[in-house]
Amino acid sequence: MADIKQLHVIKIGGNVIDNSENLYHFLKDFTALKGHKILVHGGGKVATQIAETMGIESQLVDGRRITDIETLRVVTMVYGGLINKNIVAQLQRFGTNAIGLTGADGNFIRAVKRPVKTIDYGFVGDLDDKSIDADAISRLMEAGFTPAFCALTHDGEGQMLNTNADTIASALAVALSKHYETTLIYCFEKKGVLQDINDEDSLIREIDPIRYEELKKAEIIHSGMLPKLDNAFTAISCGVKAVIIGKADELSTLQKNKPFGTRLSK
Amino acid sequence: MADIKQLHVIKIGGNVIDNSENLYHFLKDFTALKGHKILVHGGGKVATQIAETMGIESQLVDGRRITDIETLRVVTMVYGGLINKNIVAQLQRFGTNAIGLTGADGNFIRAVKRPVKTIDYGFVGDLDDKSIDADAISRLMEAGFTPAFCALTHDGEGQMLNTNADTIASALAVALSKHYETTLIYCFEKKGVLQDINDEDSLIREIDPIRYEELKKAEIIHSGMLPKLDNAFTAISCGVKAVIIGKADELSTLQKNKPFGTRLSK
Repeated sequence: MADIKQLHVIKIGGNVIDNSENLYHFLKDFTALKGHKILVHGGGKVATQIAETMGIESQLVDGRRITDIETLRVVTMVYGGLINKNIVAQLQRFGTNAIGLTGADGNFIRAVKRPVKTIDYGFVGDLDDKSIDADAISRLMEAGFTPAFCALTHDGEGQMLNTNADTIASALAVALSKHYETTLIYCFEKKGVLQDINDEDSLIREIDPIRYEELKKAEIIHSGMLPKLDNAFTAISCGVKAVIIGKADELSTLQKNKPFGTRLSK
Repeated sequence: MADIKQLHVIKIGGNVIDNSENLYHFLKDFTALKGHKILVHGGGKVATQIAETMGIESQLVDGRRITDIETLRVVTMVYGGLINKNIVAQLQRFGTNAIGLTGADGNFIRAVKRPVKTIDYGFVGDLDDKSIDADAISRLMEAGFTPAFCALTHDGEGQMLNTNADTIASALAVALSKHYETTLIYCFEKKGVLQDINDEDSLIREIDPIRYEELKKAEIIHSGMLPKLDNAFTAISCGVKAVIIGKADELSTLQKNKPFGTRLSK
């Protein structure tokens, strides 16, 4: 039987996108990474800046953007156009044959508009276990292309939707685990999960579910990291081989088979 | 030997994009068209409107937009994001498995920044006979996807460029003629080439090169149509089977094997 192919799903956020030098180095290191790979990027500050220039106020509730129709226009332009296409053009320069995508393209990610409960999030799309068309994404990769997804999806009825980039990365990694041995990498502003949040040298290299319970009991993992790690272990229990949380500028160490960030696995 | 596959390359401009009802019907008719197809769309008025909202002045010289760095940001957002992704989401709703593209995606269209002579057009990309990667586009189509290109290309060095949508449509049709029997369709505000510009019933159904010379001599083809028709006959001499100039809302007649617009061929 042939070896199962490796896939890396790598998510970058504002701290990489907003700094052109960080982005340059990251995309170069991304290109050097062997095997199949998928890039997922968030929005960065530029969407907020452009919305301001256009006189559209950005509303955030619990760190999530309220996506009214005007804001949806802005994020469709900025995430799907400005940021995504500039990332693709740079990846091409380095030799990665990227195709920039939203979930509408290829019907790859179909979401459901979030139902209104206490808060109306507007045009925000939630994912379920049928959202990702892993076969179609696999077909695109096997045809020689590297997907670069922004944080946009659609509802299948003609409506674009705004979906959290971390959620998209995790859903892609889970769904593609049926085709590939998948590692999900979250690029982060810190080196990974730290024993002491103020000490970058206190990096925890490996966490398995048992160690995770110990770290939670000892209150070493602080509140902000809890949902991230809970989601990571959920992804692992759904078939993802490992989740790595690490610093974007250290991605190249992966190529050298050196340890990178905090590795979460079974 | 297997029959050579049919391909339609269809270009739409502002008169379809700027009117949501026209666009709805066009995308529905586009979906009904059998065989391989590629959509190419221009920008419409929305880029100018958004540039104005952002306080960026649009400069046009001889009907061509001067693309300074600020304008390039706007067209990358609006063509590549807002317009392209909304078209893709609507195509998906109708059942066309579209992927929205710029020339940077898949390295499908590599252009050369226009050299500065008397006018500096800014970040405008010109195409040559090596610009289109027909093999790669064919690979994407054979994997089951329908390309929807906007009027953006790249230089292969990380720079996005603005390229005329008519030029992109023609270059795609020529390059893909080596893989497919290709028909290039320009959707137009009139029914096609008219004997009398004020009479929509005076449509000329067929023009071959001999008839074209006659029409030019008789001054029936007016100045504005000359470059369009010259380019069409160049495309035909480079392998495109036929070029059709017709009204977007009559596209469905193609399905019924009825004549549509003005058909130019050898």
